[in-house]
Amino acid sequence: MEDRFMKLAFECAKKAYQLNEVPIGAVIVKNGEVIATGYNKKESNCSVLEHAELIAIRKAEEKLHNWRLDDCDMYVTLDPCPMCASAIKQSRFSHVYSALSNSDENNSNIIQSIFLTDHVNPCIIFKSNLFPDYSQKLLRNFFKNKRI
Amino acid sequence: MEDRFMKLAFECAKKAYQLNEVPIGAVIVKNGEVIATGYNKKESNCSVLEHAELIAIRKAEEKLHNWRLDDCDMYVTLDPCPMCASAIKQSRFSHVYSALSNSDENNSNIIQSIFLTDHVNPCIIFKSNLFPDYSQKLLRNFFKNKRI
Repeated sequence: MEDRFMKLAFECAKKAYQLNEVPIGAVIVKNGEVIATGYNKKESNCSVLEHAELIAIRKAEEKLHNWRLDDCDMYVTLDPCPMCASAIKQSRFSHVYSALSNSDENNSNIIQSIFLTDHVNPCIIFKSNLFPDYSQKLLRNFFKNKRI
Repeated sequence: MEDRFMKLAFECAKKAYQLNEVPIGAVIVKNGEVIATGYNKKESNCSVLEHAELIAIRKAEEKLHNWRLDDCDMYVTLDPCPMCASAIKQSRFSHVYSALSNSDENNSNIIQSIFLTDHVNPCIIFKSNLFPDYSQKLLRNFFKNKRI
């Protein structure tokens, strides 16, 4: 885990914020190099598939001409939802580093089950709640402004 | 549940088969009308996001200019993976009809958890193993030919 990659994920999250999207950012790193980034565009592009992680995965696949993202690490500003967690698993990532754990216990349990080893894909090493204060502040500000 | 929609899902699965892809097809129905179809193109398009269900969801979102696929039903030839199940849940589908249940118990448990009501989305009504013989035959033939 390197702080600079999470810092970049937060820069991505801020781009989502500026678009009036829930501020979530994602960065994919391979061999110490950023190969793809993404930020949430669900409302702008009218699609549940426009989560930060899926956008970054699609860019990384295009760059590597391969769906197998072996030896890649994902940096995200909030724990992935089950859709993104399963996409990460099927893409064969090595590590997932998340800035903030999800307060929804059902979501957390599902993610843990997804990241376990199965008969096709290896286990994902998942480290969460690495920078909770900054991520929480960004999300709270966003939802506070939405309520006004 | 109407047989004709599952029949169309099988036609989609056969198109995947012809492309040398694992034969899985999906159909989205709203108010008795087919609004989108998809079939697995993972290998052809080098992307884990090219599952039949996600392709159909993206087409339906584009057609309705909305990520909310309220009152829509999904017909699939095999139980969705957790990625697709979560996308279906977040898209607010009403029903999921699957031709064949997944033999992987961990996958089945995760899907059941995803389809439950949460604090944002309503419960998905999920009916599985509706046409197991035909779906199993298609998949078995595919993997038998792959081994030769």
